[in-house]
Amino acid sequence: MTRRRLTLVGIGLGHPDHLTLEAVQALQSASVALVTVKRTGDPLAAVRRDLLAHHAPRLRVVEVVDPERDRSAASTSTTSGYEGVVGDWHEARAQAWEQALLEHPDGDVVVLVWGDPAFYDSTIRVVERVLARGAVAVDWSVLPGISALQLLAARHRVVLHEVGQPVHVTTERRLREAVEQGQRNVVVFLTSGTDLSGLDDWQVWWGANLGAPSERLVAGRVADVADAIAAARAAAKAEAGWVMDLFLLRLPT
Amino acid sequence: MTRRRLTLVGIGLGHPDHLTLEAVQALQSASVALVTVKRTGDPLAAVRRDLLAHHAPRLRVVEVVDPERDRSAASTSTTSGYEGVVGDWHEARAQAWEQALLEHPDGDVVVLVWGDPAFYDSTIRVVERVLARGAVAVDWSVLPGISALQLLAARHRVVLHEVGQPVHVTTERRLREAVEQGQRNVVVFLTSGTDLSGLDDWQVWWGANLGAPSERLVAGRVADVADAIAAARAAAKAEAGWVMDLFLLRLPT
Ligand SMILES: C[S@@+](CC[C@H](N)C(=O)[O-])C[C@H]1O[C@@H](n2cnc3c(N)ncnc32)[C@H](O)[C@@H]1O
Ligand SMILES: C[S@@+](CC[C@H](N)C(=O)[O-])C[C@H]1O[C@@H](n2cnc3c(N)ncnc32)[C@H](O)[C@@H]1O
Repeated sequence: MTRRRLTLVGIGLGHPDHLTLEAVQALQSASVALVTVKRTGDPLAAVRRDLLAHHAPRLRVVEVVDPERDRSAASTSTTSGYEGVVGDWHEARAQAWEQALLEHPDGDVVVLVWGDPAFYDSTIRVVERVLARGAVAVDWSVLPGISALQLLAARHRVVLHEVGQPVHVTTERRLREAVEQGQRNVVVFLTSGTDLSGLDDWQVWWGANLGAPSERLVAGRVADVADAIAAARAAAKAEAGWVMDLFLLRLPT
Repeated sequence: MTRRRLTLVGIGLGHPDHLTLEAVQALQSASVALVTVKRTGDPLAAVRRDLLAHHAPRLRVVEVVDPERDRSAASTSTTSGYEGVVGDWHEARAQAWEQALLEHPDGDVVVLVWGDPAFYDSTIRVVERVLARGAVAVDWSVLPGISALQLLAARHRVVLHEVGQPVHVTTERRLREAVEQGQRNVVVFLTSGTDLSGLDDWQVWWGANLGAPSERLVAGRVADVADAIAAARAAAKAEAGWVMDLFLLRLPT
């Protein structure tokens, strides 16, 4: 007996032409797509729906409502507190997914992952928990997709690091740590209206809603463009109803 | 008058289904593909040729022979020496490209870039130099492609960092520097038979010739799998005639 297949599909950032050919094939050959939606309303749900309508209109879409995440605890500054909360949340998600898989027992399953599953995404960890629970057995694999940091670099036509140098990929929460370590090329994910104070002489390449019609780009010396970034971020949010942004910071030599 | 377009196309790692739809469209709508080949024989030239035959069989392919790079100077340990040599090499490439563009003056141009142009690739810098020389004018853009670090993560079904943590992307040359800084999640490019001595208790996820039929994967505790990696690397090279590898290192908590 062959087991059903579960494929995590990196879908890029919502533009239908950013998918790889193998990602499109996976969507088209699956029976069921699992899509998580936030209880509070998910602005990206419509983007994903349009993507599926475009590439795989006959695919059955099962929405899994995401359990509430305890944001108050997550916003405390202790790392273990943050990770503990994230852990509980992953377990609650695993239960919800297990139930959805048991309720839809036939055919191959795809799970849509924003960007690339390897960067700041919990889907791989949730699948591991689903399988560890033991009620569901699948053969699973992961297909890479275009990540926000790649589309940022492509739009600005930059390499993420200088010749032979490292690039440090981190979160807004840990940006100051990276600067103190002496990092000179830093990509920052999970931003929330970025505070770049004290980094006046760095170069920044910033992008919001990359791949969407509301996309915004700003680049320049931090001190010169900080206001333009704030304005562009507000404009992207006003236009789309949501905003996600990230940026590359570089300390010039 | 609209200027001719030049598009840098991230092609992934040679598998035709790893291209994005927009990358395929760019290949199919171009008149000329510029492809650099090493003077000494380029094992990846055949991979790229097959890829183009698959997706854009009627595209005219112009091979630009890569100028010699001074490897002896590049292997000295001074950074500025290394960067100086790389700089001269980029300028020589720019001249070769300029000539190819002038000899083939009509229609849109694509340049195939291995993996993603944003990671350890010189194409963007070469194009900037071509344009700075002033003899050629184009409208240029960059399309992202699946990078080796993404296919590594996908094949091993891992996220490149732990929850909320950074990932440090660097070269073999700078691996020790990263470890001394206290990095705990490190992706290492530009490897040449990796020396992991002193890193016994780290976890490693290693891959060679990702996306090719000769692909090899090894994962585990460094002390346990170092020999298996060396053997798999030799086997990949024996099978394909070439080997490229990279890995993720993680210090367990
Ligand atoms: C939960 S992470 C997911 C990252 C995703 N796996 C990837 O590879 O891009 C969400 C963060 O990614 C960045 N991001 C995702 N989509 C974006 C977009 N379209 N434009 C700009 N930034 C984006 C933002 O920093 C956002 O806070
Ligand atoms: C000049 S860099 C180009 C990287 C490319 N731009 C990318 O995004 O993957 C070449 C290095 O990338 C890694 N690499 C490229 N292709 C690979 C493959 N198919 N399998 C494993 N590693 C690969 C190796 O570390 C190799 O030394």
